[in-house]
Amino acid sequence: MGGGVHDKYSQPEGPQSCAAPSMKLPGQEELEAACACENVPVGQLDRGPSSGPCPDDPSDTGSRELGPPEDPPLFLQLNELLGWPQTLEWREMGRWVLFEEKLEVDAGRWSAPHVPTLALPSLQKLRSLLAEGLVLLDCPAQNLLELVEQVTRVESLSPELRGQLQALLLQRPQHHTQTTGSRPCWGPAQSRKAAHNKEAPMQQQCQSPLRQKLPPGAEAGAVLAGELGFLAQPLAAFVRLRDPVWLGPLTEVPLPSRFFCLLLGPPMLGKGYHELGRAAAVLLSDPHFQWSVRRASNLHDLLTALDAFLEEVTVLPPGRWDPTARIPPPRCLPSRHKRTQAEDRHRNGPLAPSPELQRTGRLFGGLVQDVRRKASWYPSDFSDALHPQCVSAVLYIYLATVTNAITFGGLLGDATDGAQGVLESLLGTAVAGAAFCLMAGQPLTVLSSTGPVLVFERLLFAFCRDYSLDYLPFRLWVGIWVAVFCLALVATEASVLVRYFTRFTEEGFCALISLIFIYDAVGKMLNLAHAYPIQRPGSLAYGCLCQFPGPGGNESQWTRPRPQSRDDLLSVDLGLVNASLLPPHECVQQGGYPRGPGCHTVPDIAFFSLLLFLTSFLFAIALKHMKTSHFFPSVVRKVLSDFSSILAILLGCGLDALLGLAMPKLMVPREFKPTLPGRGWLVPPFGANPWWLSVAAALPALLLSILIFMDQQITAVILNRVEYRLRKGAGFHLDLFCVALLMLLTSVLGLPWYVSATVLSLAHMDSLRRESRACAPGEPHSFLGIREQRLTGLAVFTLTGVSIFLAPVLKFIPMPVLYGIFLYMGVAALSSIQFMKRVQLMLMPAKHQPDLLLLRHVPLSRVHLFTAIQLACLGLLWIIKSTPAAIIFPLMLLGLVGVRKALEWVFSPQELLWLDELMPEEERNVPEKGLEPGHSFSGSDSEDSELMYQPKAPEINISVN
Amino acid sequence: MGGGVHDKYSQPEGPQSCAAPSMKLPGQEELEAACACENVPVGQLDRGPSSGPCPDDPSDTGSRELGPPEDPPLFLQLNELLGWPQTLEWREMGRWVLFEEKLEVDAGRWSAPHVPTLALPSLQKLRSLLAEGLVLLDCPAQNLLELVEQVTRVESLSPELRGQLQALLLQRPQHHTQTTGSRPCWGPAQSRKAAHNKEAPMQQQCQSPLRQKLPPGAEAGAVLAGELGFLAQPLAAFVRLRDPVWLGPLTEVPLPSRFFCLLLGPPMLGKGYHELGRAAAVLLSDPHFQWSVRRASNLHDLLTALDAFLEEVTVLPPGRWDPTARIPPPRCLPSRHKRTQAEDRHRNGPLAPSPELQRTGRLFGGLVQDVRRKASWYPSDFSDALHPQCVSAVLYIYLATVTNAITFGGLLGDATDGAQGVLESLLGTAVAGAAFCLMAGQPLTVLSSTGPVLVFERLLFAFCRDYSLDYLPFRLWVGIWVAVFCLALVATEASVLVRYFTRFTEEGFCALISLIFIYDAVGKMLNLAHAYPIQRPGSLAYGCLCQFPGPGGNESQWTRPRPQSRDDLLSVDLGLVNASLLPPHECVQQGGYPRGPGCHTVPDIAFFSLLLFLTSFLFAIALKHMKTSHFFPSVVRKVLSDFSSILAILLGCGLDALLGLAMPKLMVPREFKPTLPGRGWLVPPFGANPWWLSVAAALPALLLSILIFMDQQITAVILNRVEYRLRKGAGFHLDLFCVALLMLLTSVLGLPWYVSATVLSLAHMDSLRRESRACAPGEPHSFLGIREQRLTGLAVFTLTGVSIFLAPVLKFIPMPVLYGIFLYMGVAALSSIQFMKRVQLMLMPAKHQPDLLLLRHVPLSRVHLFTAIQLACLGLLWIIKSTPAAIIFPLMLLGLVGVRKALEWVFSPQELLWLDELMPEEERNVPEKGLEPGHSFSGSDSEDSELMYQPKAPEINISVN
Repeated sequence: MGGGVHDKYSQPEGPQSCAAPSMKLPGQEELEAACACENVPVGQLDRGPSSGPCPDDPSDTGSRELGPPEDPPLFLQLNELLGWPQTLEWREMGRWVLFEEKLEVDAGRWSAPHVPTLALPSLQKLRSLLAEGLVLLDCPAQNLLELVEQVTRVESLSPELRGQLQALLLQRPQHHTQTTGSRPCWGPAQSRKAAHNKEAPMQQQCQSPLRQKLPPGAEAGAVLAGELGFLAQPLAAFVRLRDPVWLGPLTEVPLPSRFFCLLLGPPMLGKGYHELGRAAAVLLSDPHFQWSVRRASNLHDLLTALDAFLEEVTVLPPGRWDPTARIPPPRCLPSRHKRTQAEDRHRNGPLAPSPELQRTGRLFGGLVQDVRRKASWYPSDFSDALHPQCVSAVLYIYLATVTNAITFGGLLGDATDGAQGVLESLLGTAVAGAAFCLMAGQPLTVLSSTGPVLVFERLLFAFCRDYSLDYLPFRLWVGIWVAVFCLALVATEASVLVRYFTRFTEEGFCALISLIFIYDAVGKMLNLAHAYPIQRPGSLAYGCLCQFPGPGGNESQWTRPRPQSRDDLLSVDLGLVNASLLPPHECVQQGGYPRGPGCHTVPDIAFFSLLLFLTSFLFAIALKHMKTSHFFPSVVRKVLSDFSSILAILLGCGLDALLGLAMPKLMVPREFKPTLPGRGWLVPPFGANPWWLSVAAALPALLLSILIFMDQQITAVILNRVEYRLRKGAGFHLDLFCVALLMLLTSVLGLPWYVSATVLSLAHMDSLRRESRACAPGEPHSFLGIREQRLTGLAVFTLTGVSIFLAPVLKFIPMPVLYGIFLYMGVAALSSIQFMKRVQLMLMPAKHQPDLLLLRHVPLSRVHLFTAIQLACLGLLWIIKSTPAAIIFPLMLLGLVGVRKALEWVFSPQELLWLDELMPEEERNVPEKGLEPGHSFSGSDSEDSELMYQPKAPEINISVN
Repeated sequence: MGGGVHDKYSQPEGPQSCAAPSMKLPGQEELEAACACENVPVGQLDRGPSSGPCPDDPSDTGSRELGPPEDPPLFLQLNELLGWPQTLEWREMGRWVLFEEKLEVDAGRWSAPHVPTLALPSLQKLRSLLAEGLVLLDCPAQNLLELVEQVTRVESLSPELRGQLQALLLQRPQHHTQTTGSRPCWGPAQSRKAAHNKEAPMQQQCQSPLRQKLPPGAEAGAVLAGELGFLAQPLAAFVRLRDPVWLGPLTEVPLPSRFFCLLLGPPMLGKGYHELGRAAAVLLSDPHFQWSVRRASNLHDLLTALDAFLEEVTVLPPGRWDPTARIPPPRCLPSRHKRTQAEDRHRNGPLAPSPELQRTGRLFGGLVQDVRRKASWYPSDFSDALHPQCVSAVLYIYLATVTNAITFGGLLGDATDGAQGVLESLLGTAVAGAAFCLMAGQPLTVLSSTGPVLVFERLLFAFCRDYSLDYLPFRLWVGIWVAVFCLALVATEASVLVRYFTRFTEEGFCALISLIFIYDAVGKMLNLAHAYPIQRPGSLAYGCLCQFPGPGGNESQWTRPRPQSRDDLLSVDLGLVNASLLPPHECVQQGGYPRGPGCHTVPDIAFFSLLLFLTSFLFAIALKHMKTSHFFPSVVRKVLSDFSSILAILLGCGLDALLGLAMPKLMVPREFKPTLPGRGWLVPPFGANPWWLSVAAALPALLLSILIFMDQQITAVILNRVEYRLRKGAGFHLDLFCVALLMLLTSVLGLPWYVSATVLSLAHMDSLRRESRACAPGEPHSFLGIREQRLTGLAVFTLTGVSIFLAPVLKFIPMPVLYGIFLYMGVAALSSIQFMKRVQLMLMPAKHQPDLLLLRHVPLSRVHLFTAIQLACLGLLWIIKSTPAAIIFPLMLLGLVGVRKALEWVFSPQELLWLDELMPEEERNVPEKGLEPGHSFSGSDSEDSELMYQPKAPEINISVN
């Protein structure tokens, strides 16, 4: 599936593969020296090792070949015996699923989940207690009473003591369940009681919010620990029940219990029992230990598992780490293969290209294969959409799409003197999007007229204007030629060449486009300030009067036109003066001539435009960042962040409406007709152009074809990444085929040109992700896959089509607001690429640089050199773009590929591997061991080789959304 | 020293006390569940336990009473043998002082310092190797050759092997020293060679930047590890040299070596030797182990020390923590008392009030004592200033003071119709500040006319205006009465009462003042927008013409006044019209009358003011945050952050100058005379007021006295906190005495009133802090004390006095810029108090709340209740402030103390201890064990009792600077 060059270091599918891919803008997190991101969900993690056998368990030979059965997840709870000697009571003091939660007794709340830390002596003490204590494996007890009887059947206890102990063990423990509703809060003692309600245990158990976080089939384990004065020596018991049994109110959550551990003793040990209990619970919460102990047949197996645990613990020296500090859950848990050493070490060798990108050698062979593959899924592409999640996905993607279409439609109209406008943008998005959804290989794709194609379209328009050509007819021929070239690319299966565009090329491309966006947004703002100049003290803003034609004109014509409706001041009797103070437009209405320099200035517009521009830009950024804020419930944060652009536009419109200034607004035709006055929906094939231009159009079409091919295919590769777990396969050739057909259609109708938009499409997929519901505290949701279907896209684009009738509403949008959103898009796209992070590194002292994988493996000077070369390329591209030769800029992209190829002379393959990616030939040439950087010196270094197991996070980022 | 109620949980002075107090706005970091902040510097940490004896060292009984001698800090280096079997070479792979730095071989750089993590088996393996290996304690070797001979004198080695081994051990190791200069960066292989230069070892050693970070007297330890094929069995040796000896180029840094550890063996162990070497180095870098091993007399002692280390390690379970993850150095190292369990547990009982706050019982007894105490330090108050650091401190504090004086002078002038202005503000600051520096008990104090006193002054002015009183004479009497009351407070030693103002009161006060600042800043901006209205399309902005008196006026008078200098447009011939399009002010000059509604509007000012206001506000905030940014060297960041206000003002002025609009500017008199026209420097005692007002002034004076007393004394308590390690003592009574005298002086001269400013004074102290230079990688600088003297203050205020002649420059500052800075000050002060952080908690879902100590110990509902009560009080205060009774607001402060007292009925003392502080009586009433929250249930909880050892960070924050 998917993949190719960009995925060659990601992990293959299966239980080890990355379970929670981020669907943010690709590359946004890639630089962090992060972990392998193998968030294995509860259900999987506690299953025990499913590929490699547990290496330390001698009883395991039987299941080694068969593969072990899946173990259910385990909830562990520590009940501590408190209050000796007066008022003995059991209280739940800690709980574990993946991470530890500690009861903050005074605050009456559970601590945040954190990585449990233990003291080594308590583990050793636990080992000796277990070794001497009672170990019952496969105990047949059916309820708590039977269990207690079994456990207390110890020789050292007198019958009287046994009775006391049994009564104690049967005592109901106090659980702390956090009720989500309001709690009474008056009086210091009252609230504490309310929080630890002793009544209604089963009801309380069922209400426990934790219950909903555990998957069905989860089991419980209880550890009971504490000091008990009447015991002469420590009493330890470890029980594995044959069948999981509901043990009454022993545990907070009404789960059947599988494990039971009792650690009691005389008071002399002091705090030790609490720590012993924690040690037991932490041990049992370890998946490897759990796996072993579920299969242990005797005490020896149990102790061997404990020793195996000890072998693997991480030790922090006492003088350098405060043992009471709480470590927050790591973003990803350690990958399993780090623990099962025997695993295959060669999985990171070059992968074969995915089947979609393999050449068949036949004309249109790839296309045929794509159609065949997708046809079999076609019915399910509609039936799979029957889920409420799809409704919210439609709403979200519709708003994003329509915002996008309006913003870019407005800007395209601005740039092409109305040859295309908002109406065309909405119509084209609806038609092209819906058609693509129905036909394409990857129906989750959202088409858009943004990014490089938009830039090209603007350049083409400028070219036509400069040479006085008829734009739309010329554009029609360009579109026809592009369709032809793209069909040729489909026929020759050219899509497989996409592997030559490495991140170097993509980043240069993306940075250039982002910079053009930023430059344009700022430039348009400055144009506004030019059109509505600021009025300085010496400027001539004041003078404006309304002069009337003849000195003998009839005074009554103008002095009191509507005497009751206007202020007297407006038409002061100026004696001899045949003039008035009417505002210019009223003056003209009255047949006068506005005279004076102040008549044509509109004050306050420039600064208010700037304010609106900055407000919408900053507001969009701030709302986008709400997602990672700690305020408000996550639903609210998600809504604010997802709809940041539209909220920023709404805010700008609101501010504008509040002040009511004569701001320049979005131009929208009042009826359903092309924005350009006087043209029909069908573009005439020649117009005023000579016939040979239809042939000459092949030249720009060639350039545009390069652009479209790159933009389309790179997006397709990103969307079909293996970590998104798509089941229905990709269709690179089919997608390009559809784009070619749509190119033809939009050219004929004079609509904007469309190509896949990375960011919108990723957002679409993200809104359709299926996630595990059950999630242990501290564990992120785990990713199960995507609802692949064609219905959400179809609905989105139908709604977009309907939005054409929103046009009368759209004319309230001030242009500076759109420019602000435009700037935001440029800045967001620019800041998301690794290149910019490397530029930032140049400004950071080495001491403050983040701990990036890249910096661990490439000398800083080499990193800076690579960045400097990229900067130089970008500068060169910018210079070319500013010359009249700007229209050839798609060719410059191929130049970037050449520069990247030349870099092989400057950088070693290992450096390029970290800074960029390898090209197909390099990959073959580099010996496999060479792919482990620094093999010669750091072969003895566990960290380095581990890092190679970590998939490089998604690195491609091309879309300026 | 200092202290009182506010310091009662901070630690006493001595080696354990907090070594690096933050001099930021107090309370800014207090809420974090941070560590005890016991940054013990290298020199101290590696001294071994200096108060408690090392509990596990049996050879230690002798030194237990005497206190151990101080051990020098130890630099440790791991040299690994690489390249077996072809090209054997030693390479430095890691180094340790406090934290581990790992060589990133490929990148050619040291990793960031991090907490070392070990695997338990390597520690156990190391133990067994040492137990079987050669241990030489007090080895007399004088150089590397002798040492190598000693070490290789092992029976198991054949003579031939011994020779080979000796040659190998004498081989020069490769060190990676990071040169700060530029390195060649062309060619992949070249740079690597340059980075690991083999030549000039001693020179290279001396250049090592690490050398400068280690204090004189530091010693080195070398661990040599690796696999060696010709050895049949592992070879381990541990050497403690009798005298530290320079061992040639063995270590990166030219330090005499004390320890030497050799761990070689046959290749079968694989990666193990690297980990074994790390384990040995980490062990030796542990202060307790080092302390023991320096005193060990035999192998048994060594192993006992290792076992003691193992007893104390923190263990992380394998399934929940990735062992390859690097943990950044904690903000504070674990406190020593956590490791020496036998220590006194009662240090956090209520402290006796510091001597400065003890009542003598005699009239002016406190003042006399203060004068006596400070007199003895007076000569040193000048001699201690002879240090270059003082020069930069003067520059920094001067700029901060003058910015403050200008901002508040401008605002005060605004608020009091020029009764005080910038000139008075500068003059008063200079006179009062210099006088205070010369006389006061705490000469580091910076006086300022900001905050509550400013608010009171404004209210007083409003009162006088409402009742048509002569402001300055009335104010003079208020000042005289305040001086009398303050002297009475000095006489009765009332300063000791300051302990009743708990954080509840201070926060309410500070929040109210901050809100007034914010409200005023925004209000003044809106006033500006009102004064310069925005011109909407329908508004009458256009019409304005210049009408001339008589219809028979001489046309040549005005149509061509300066024909060559003005544009023709300005004086269009309008036929019969006896009018012109001259701008209003020129029209008036020409003897005409501006007519029409457009003549009085100034366009574009409102929005540009808003832009300037927002720009200066946001820029000041952004620059302030530069300090914690990762960009730019720390010097640049510090300058940008320290001078954020002045840079923001400069930016605003620059923008204004660039556009040249007629913005409202700061009003400054052109010559040295009072801002209010027509008054002399001496305020007349009665003016137009009746005589009895001089008596009635006692009433507002009483209110102001309360205010001044609180503001002055709370600031004094903060400045004299024990963690700032002031040696020369405080002078609470003397300070108040000085304030009273200055009150008199400033009232007579009509200058603003002055009181100590917390933030400026803390900044002053911060700029004078003495810090340790030597600092191990990853270790923060440690704080040694403050340069207490009177000269910097004197210089600052002399410069401020000279700045009066800057007045002609100051008139270029637009008022919106000052309002922006004003807003910034209000927001900064508001966001720095704990109260606001608790308000934020109300908006956070419990899951996302930070791990605050407070939340661990107080139920969330109780925290919210406390916050809600504070909010209600604040609302009530705001309402009262908005009524005509606003001037009584100092009395409301006493009301806050009453509310706080009443809270004792709602909250338990333990809750109040976490949410606020205890009042003196409560402190006495609460049983000592009750101070450990949750004693009854969490007595067995190590974390809770540990937390009590942590000093509550500075909590008071009163100054709106």
